[in-house]
Amino acid sequence: MPEPRNYRMTVAYDGTDFLGYQIQREQRTVQAELEKALLRLTQQAVRANGAGRTDAGVHAHGQVVSFRAEWRSQTSDLERALNAVLPRDISVRELQAVDEGFHARFSATSREYLYRLYVSPVRYPHLDRYTWRLSRDIDSERLIEATAMLVGEADLRAFGQATEGRSTVRSIYRAEWKPLPCEGLDRPGWAFLIEANGFLRGMVRRIVGTLASVGLGLLEPEQLGELIASRDPARACAPAPACGLFFWRARYQGDRHSGQD
Amino acid sequence: MPEPRNYRMTVAYDGTDFLGYQIQREQRTVQAELEKALLRLTQQAVRANGAGRTDAGVHAHGQVVSFRAEWRSQTSDLERALNAVLPRDISVRELQAVDEGFHARFSATSREYLYRLYVSPVRYPHLDRYTWRLSRDIDSERLIEATAMLVGEADLRAFGQATEGRSTVRSIYRAEWKPLPCEGLDRPGWAFLIEANGFLRGMVRRIVGTLASVGLGLLEPEQLGELIASRDPARACAPAPACGLFFWRARYQGDRHSGQD
Repeated sequence: MPEPRNYRMTVAYDGTDFLGYQIQREQRTVQAELEKALLRLTQQAVRANGAGRTDAGVHAHGQVVSFRAEWRSQTSDLERALNAVLPRDISVRELQAVDEGFHARFSATSREYLYRLYVSPVRYPHLDRYTWRLSRDIDSERLIEATAMLVGEADLRAFGQATEGRSTVRSIYRAEWKPLPCEGLDRPGWAFLIEANGFLRGMVRRIVGTLASVGLGLLEPEQLGELIASRDPARACAPAPACGLFFWRARYQGDRHSGQD
Repeated sequence: MPEPRNYRMTVAYDGTDFLGYQIQREQRTVQAELEKALLRLTQQAVRANGAGRTDAGVHAHGQVVSFRAEWRSQTSDLERALNAVLPRDISVRELQAVDEGFHARFSATSREYLYRLYVSPVRYPHLDRYTWRLSRDIDSERLIEATAMLVGEADLRAFGQATEGRSTVRSIYRAEWKPLPCEGLDRPGWAFLIEANGFLRGMVRRIVGTLASVGLGLLEPEQLGELIASRDPARACAPAPACGLFFWRARYQGDRHSGQD
């Protein structure tokens, strides 16, 4: 038998029909599907650790997963075999053998999420699956003013939960909006990219819900600062729906920083 | 009882889970869902005539549907009620009472389809639902050269079937490709817009399959002319998949021509 090796893979998925990334008893989750496929191909019980534990309905463009397994053929054969047996809503973009020390979750230096929204008084079913619909447009100046206040290190308890008494301090490195082209609509939508060293559970959706409230004039930009300072989750706005959210990328020490991806 | 009136509505749908627009015995079709909703709301058996009979899996951004019904309240109430009872994958964008003579199919002066494709060696589940994946890029010069040959009136039997011995001559008014922004991918995809006085069954998908073959270097641009002249469907390339196709819009005499939509 070959020695077990450590693998890193990049995975994209449509989160609509999953109860999130993390394995849960008798539920359809991304991790469960990945581990089932790995069991089938390698005959080993494999743990597939993800960089981000996305919630039910959240998608991924570049989730990173690490696992240890014995595989006697080429790595590229395992990648092809995985894509052949995985369901249509999961795709392995890349698979490589990596150093023993690599762990998708613990080795990550930052994570990025992308949130998509569109502006339309009427619903478009083909947009709804991956985009949150706002019935009226948001004020981009207010939005930019409030978004700038997010960058830096802060206790973000107001935006989410940490696991079992762990710290709720996070560093947000980047938070920016850009127009999202929406063919056939009056106006472009908005895409929000946020990069941080880590995210609390539900954090991006609560941030987007709150920023949208600022953009819609329901909340003043200054109130965002007060909300963060309060560390009171009850004061945050309703979270934006899961459908618009994508786990976009995780970064690791030694990765080439390409603009792409 | 009020007199029955003639209505025009614009409908968007995600075609993935439909066996096409047109009603078919015991199948899930868009027309069946619309007529079921109208029966429930008006207590009348209503025929919902669509401008285009989209095939299984084909989406719509702006399908136009006409029907006659008695409705004692405001038209806007009927629109809201329809959106409340229709399944999530159909949306009524607009509903208005119109002249008796209006018929979504027979009054249309032109129809437009949009076809979306993306270029990537790996699959992205969240793009696959509404976009055809090509694993390598197409040569835009070859594509433009071939596409220009489509515009005009011609017997297009090579690209599709007409119903029961009817003419296969159609006038293509416009056929053009433009870049399709694809967030997170190496390069943009392509969106193909085609407008004609009418389309044969399967025509857009066969045209796109053939143009993609030209763009990929599998067919010379000149061969497109020969293919059309042959009027032989067996010589056309395999049709592009339904997932990338949208019924985009129908135009009618007297409609304002706005750039939007």
